Amino acid sequence: MQAKQCFVELRCKECGRAYPKEAIHVCELDFGPLEAVYDYQAIRSCLSRRSLAARPPSMWKYREFLPLEGDPVVGLHVGFTPLVRARRLGEALGIRELYIKNDTVNHPTLSFKDRVVAVALSRAKELGLSTVACASTGNLANSLAANAASAGFQSYVLIPADLERSKVMSSLIYGARVIGIRGPYDQVNRLCSEIAGKYSWGFVNINLRPYYAEGSKTMGFEIVEQLGWSLPTHTVIPMASGSLLTKIAKAYRELVQTGLVEEKRFAVHGAQAAGCSPITEAFRRGSDLIRPVPQPSTIAKSLAIGSPADGYYAVRTIRETGGAAEAASDEEILHGIELLAETEGIFAETAGGVTVACAQKLAKAGRLSGPGPVVLCITAHGLKTPDALEPRLPEPPVIAPSLREFDALVAVDGEALWT
Amino acid sequence: MQAKQCFVELRCKECGRAYPKEAIHVCELDFGPLEAVYDYQAIRSCLSRRSLAARPPSMWKYREFLPLEGDPVVGLHVGFTPLVRARRLGEALGIRELYIKNDTVNHPTLSFKDRVVAVALSRAKELGLSTVACASTGNLANSLAANAASAGFQSYVLIPADLERSKVMSSLIYGARVIGIRGPYDQVNRLCSEIAGKYSWGFVNINLRPYYAEGSKTMGFEIVEQLGWSLPTHTVIPMASGSLLTKIAKAYRELVQTGLVEEKRFAVHGAQAAGCSPITEAFRRGSDLIRPVPQPSTIAKSLAIGSPADGYYAVRTIRETGGAAEAASDEEILHGIELLAETEGIFAETAGGVTVACAQKLAKAGRLSGPGPVVLCITAHGLKTPDALEPRLPEPPVIAPSLREFDALVAVDGEALWT
Ligand SMILES: Cc1ncc(COP(=O)(O)O)c(C=O)c1O
Ligand SMILES: Cc1ncc(COP(=O)(O)O)c(C=O)c1O
Ligand SMILES: [Zn+2]
Ligand SMILES: [Zn+2]
Repeated sequence: MQAKQCFVELRCKECGRAYPKEAIHVCELDFGPLEAVYDYQAIRSCLSRRSLAARPPSMWKYREFLPLEGDPVVGLHVGFTPLVRARRLGEALGIRELYIKNDTVNHPTLSFKDRVVAVALSRAKELGLSTVACASTGNLANSLAANAASAGFQSYVLIPADLERSKVMSSLIYGARVIGIRGPYDQVNRLCSEIAGKYSWGFVNINLRPYYAEGSKTMGFEIVEQLGWSLPTHTVIPMASGSLLTKIAKAYRELVQTGLVEEKRFAVHGAQAAGCSPITEAFRRGSDLIRPVPQPSTIAKSLAIGSPADGYYAVRTIRETGGAAEAASDEEILHGIELLAETEGIFAETAGGVTVACAQKLAKAGRLSGPGPVVLCITAHGLKTPDALEPRLPEPPVIAPSLREFDALVAVDGEALWT
Repeated sequence: MQAKQCFVELRCKECGRAYPKEAIHVCELDFGPLEAVYDYQAIRSCLSRRSLAARPPSMWKYREFLPLEGDPVVGLHVGFTPLVRARRLGEALGIRELYIKNDTVNHPTLSFKDRVVAVALSRAKELGLSTVACASTGNLANSLAANAASAGFQSYVLIPADLERSKVMSSLIYGARVIGIRGPYDQVNRLCSEIAGKYSWGFVNINLRPYYAEGSKTMGFEIVEQLGWSLPTHTVIPMASGSLLTKIAKAYRELVQTGLVEEKRFAVHGAQAAGCSPITEAFRRGSDLIRPVPQPSTIAKSLAIGSPADGYYAVRTIRETGGAAEAASDEEILHGIELLAETEGIFAETAGGVTVACAQKLAKAGRLSGPGPVVLCITAHGLKTPDALEPRLPEPPVIAPSLREFDALVAVDGEALWT
């Protein structure tokens, strides 16, 4: 791939102090998060639209924008998922030029988390780590387990004990050591911070977070390339910790900064479940201050983070770009999943239902207007949360293998039978 | 995409009689299957490795080799799934240069069936059909339902009534009219033939079969391009009707014929479940004659076709290319799924377990030897058949969010706890 090394150092997002490229994530002075810094001049001089077009279709096209020192070694086939022109959903939502960024088919574990894990584990190899771990609401667990297996890491996955069985199973199958923790995600996360301090493991979303989080940018890079090198006017993004949203905005800015795309106004919008919407609540209050939700209660368990690590930055990014934040009830989430499936043939998990439902509200409120494309980030597959839909789906009629019985079945007003 | 029109006509595979490009599938004289015929001279003159490399990454790169008259309109993002270098699985199986063609992440419904449906429904639009249907062992049902939804077709899906709930659900969610039929697949299929004769619907795997079946070739085209324009020495392919196997071999031959790849010996090998292995049995008997399996009994329901429509051609293709056929028991299938997940981080459905298990047997018997790459076709995702694995996976341990409890848990010999 002949990528140039453009990753310079880690730097505190608050005070700007520089840090070495190690398994560290907070500033010693002010506890600000550390972030990867690049030499954009170097990137500008070695990347062009043409050179990017010639690279194989994966997230690693954008390798110069990722915090590695050598070539990636884990998750080589992650990313470059389809950007689907969604005419039928657009009609239903009243959006003229609508697209779905479809990470439900991300390799290997059907969610955008494969992007962040690919970066974190590639960096973990560079740092010489042999055991990796995470605190997860489910999708990260699946992705860590799978990618760790393929790379020969030992892996530990800590999750809230009440997670969907499908998500638990999708970690166990790869041989990860899965541990259920009694309590909501925030307590899982706190425990993991303690473990990270004691064991010399790489917790992808704790001590490896500065590397991990950068992986989310690739969703933004790909959207812009797939739109024919143009920034979307509006992007609607589901939020748990708020990291994906801030990183997609960062990706858009980096493409402008390196001359790969023309500057243009873009708005990023946040989507949460009503049963756990601390970032949306802060947006509504006109505040930067996130009020934790101690007991999240929503079917969108993947988004159920009551104390979002990047909530502050997410709400600021939304406001700075002229975006908005919304929240969807469980009923609206389920309807969002069905609407997406019936109009576009894409089956998303509950987080996807949140995104569609919130986009519907944003559109109704006139927040997604203006010329140019609107992109919905659909971040994980529906087979990860089948139980949410199960009770709403009918038992299909059963007949003998007989044309007579078939005729009788479809002769009864078809609509009445199936809807 | 500026594709040239190279699809000439349909032709009987037995007597060679030409037929118009309609919704027909058998020869009036000898009941031979009709197959699409192309102008390879024209393809040769308009396609090159370079022009193919410049096209967007989907199965439609190979549009000139597909039986459409205009541009595709359904399933525009299907295909170009990863070809993964599988070192760890290769070590486990004793295969030096092993690859996984990973259709578990195919857009939109996580199986290779999205390829065949994309062609069939694009052709259905050209033929002016508004209702599409299929007889299915599950994956085709999911794909037809999703792609029909996105294209605005009315869809009917007929399946054996005892199919996995996950597969049923993954058709219902898109709004398809799902009908369970009491009896094995062959009776579903027979009923569908009767329905196709009476209703003017497009049954993708019956009257649209000549178009539908060609879609499977794209898996072969992609493998060759992803190997850097070289034919794999061995390809292991799961078989239900036997169509995928014959079409992958056809794809390899077409690439040679059009000068896109150098001629070389290639062997295609077939994989079936022991509980329904009519094609493998014929191979073992040294015969072309398929003896139907009246009551299939295997956890690999997606492959449970007792009277395979293309069984005759499949067994001949296997023999002509110097390949072999194998069969795997339910226990071996489950072990195959686990092995693939633990070594490569790829979670496949039961059909994938069949392929891995049969590849293991073929390798042991020395059938996959010689220089050059070995490719396993992994054709659908594990979350489509979760129930098969469920009983084998442990309940994870549950602890309070306390470092003390965590220490105690991992202090107990870790291995013992998790394996
Ligand atoms: C499916 C899905 N979408 C979106 C998110 C939000 O990610 P973030 O924590 O970066 O806000 C998550 C987080 O787990 C997720 O699982
Ligand atoms: C997952 C999977 N793999 C392979 C096959 C085999 O397909 P064919 O009928 O072309 O042999 C099927 C058929 O349904 C399938 O569902
Ligand atoms: Zn600082
Ligand atoms: Zn004939």
